[in-house]
Amino acid sequence: MRNKAVVLLSGGLDSATTLYLAQDKGFDVYALIFDYGQRHGREVAQARAIARRAKCSFQVNKIVLPWKGSSLLDGARPVPRGRCGRRGIPSTYVPARNTIFISFALSYAESIGAQRIFIGANALDYSGYPDCRPRYFKAWQGLARLATKGGVEGAPVKIETPLLHFKKSRIIRLGMKLGVPYEMTWSCYQGAKNPCGRCDSCLLRARGFKEAGAEDPALRCES
Amino acid sequence: MRNKAVVLLSGGLDSATTLYLAQDKGFDVYALIFDYGQRHGREVAQARAIARRAKCSFQVNKIVLPWKGSSLLDGARPVPRGRCGRRGIPSTYVPARNTIFISFALSYAESIGAQRIFIGANALDYSGYPDCRPRYFKAWQGLARLATKGGVEGAPVKIETPLLHFKKSRIIRLGMKLGVPYEMTWSCYQGAKNPCGRCDSCLLRARGFKEAGAEDPALRCES
Repeated sequence: MRNKAVVLLSGGLDSATTLYLAQDKGFDVYALIFDYGQRHGREVAQARAIARRAKCSFQVNKIVLPWKGSSLLDGARPVPRGRCGRRGIPSTYVPARNTIFISFALSYAESIGAQRIFIGANALDYSGYPDCRPRYFKAWQGLARLATKGGVEGAPVKIETPLLHFKKSRIIRLGMKLGVPYEMTWSCYQGAKNPCGRCDSCLLRARGFKEAGAEDPALRCES
Repeated sequence: MRNKAVVLLSGGLDSATTLYLAQDKGFDVYALIFDYGQRHGREVAQARAIARRAKCSFQVNKIVLPWKGSSLLDGARPVPRGRCGRRGIPSTYVPARNTIFISFALSYAESIGAQRIFIGANALDYSGYPDCRPRYFKAWQGLARLATKGGVEGAPVKIETPLLHFKKSRIIRLGMKLGVPYEMTWSCYQGAKNPCGRCDSCLLRARGFKEAGAEDPALRCES
């Protein structure tokens, strides 16, 4: 029997690559998808489609965050245009989002007997969120050991962030080797039919494909 | 303007006491209640009633944990009878439950500008869950600092566990001074109309009232 791994799947480029990477490493993947009222709700549909394509088990968890405070949740607030990672934490930051996601993943992992959680977080080509930094994930590792029955019994769940120090172009080159269906991934923070091409997430993606010397198949599909 | 605090309110004795204690310390309390499919769903109704009595703001968050793995979520599994804290982690353990609750509280606190989270966890008279131990909460403090915008900006949310080292009888004596409506609190793990009197939670409560030299007003109400 193959070892199980929970993979946080947002429907974006990084998490899809992480899913294929976990499968390539031989894990039986259980994808965890969150519908948390994000304005780019389309990524949930894309995440489902990617999980089906990858033929892995998946769960969609609906989470209600009645408190607003992020332009990613509040349709009345504009999503900033242009790169924003170097100008402090942007308005698209959702308070404690990754913390909530990882806590659910931890619960799921322990329930199904998975000893790995894979997260496609990236601390190089990212939007400057505090909960994407290496020391944040390091702290999580300690908490996961203390929080769970498995941790007490000497078999804590391990949190893996294989793309943490990769440039976006390197992630894309890796994903192309692994056969990641990038035409199915969704990165744009806006909820429109087509990617806006102007938000931080669109710009990071475009630069990644350019530096990887590849065409973005998601854009090719639109025309 | 008074400082805000998020209080995790389960509807049980410890969390109700914590709520009144936070108010007594001068905080403007925002109670966070979770409906997570617990078999003792009655505690949710009691938590609402307690929050109304205390005249504080409150939110009820519905959380779906599609994975089972706990006798507290799975009606088909029996809740153990008798004290179980000294025989390892009991079947009522819900994987990563407190971790999920605290991550939501962290998101809520940051969204409303609260710098405190109060949790009525107790590591003396408890059921032996890993996520009630002092070092678990200590690790959370570090994670909360790294996870959030407030932490990056030098104002992390502080996680307070004022009852962590109190015996149940001491909690009850404190609560009686503070006017906690113990007749409204619900401790039993079973979902029946009246407390079973046999589960770990009922036994801890009964011993607490006995040692405090007080009558449990919740039992008085039944007759």
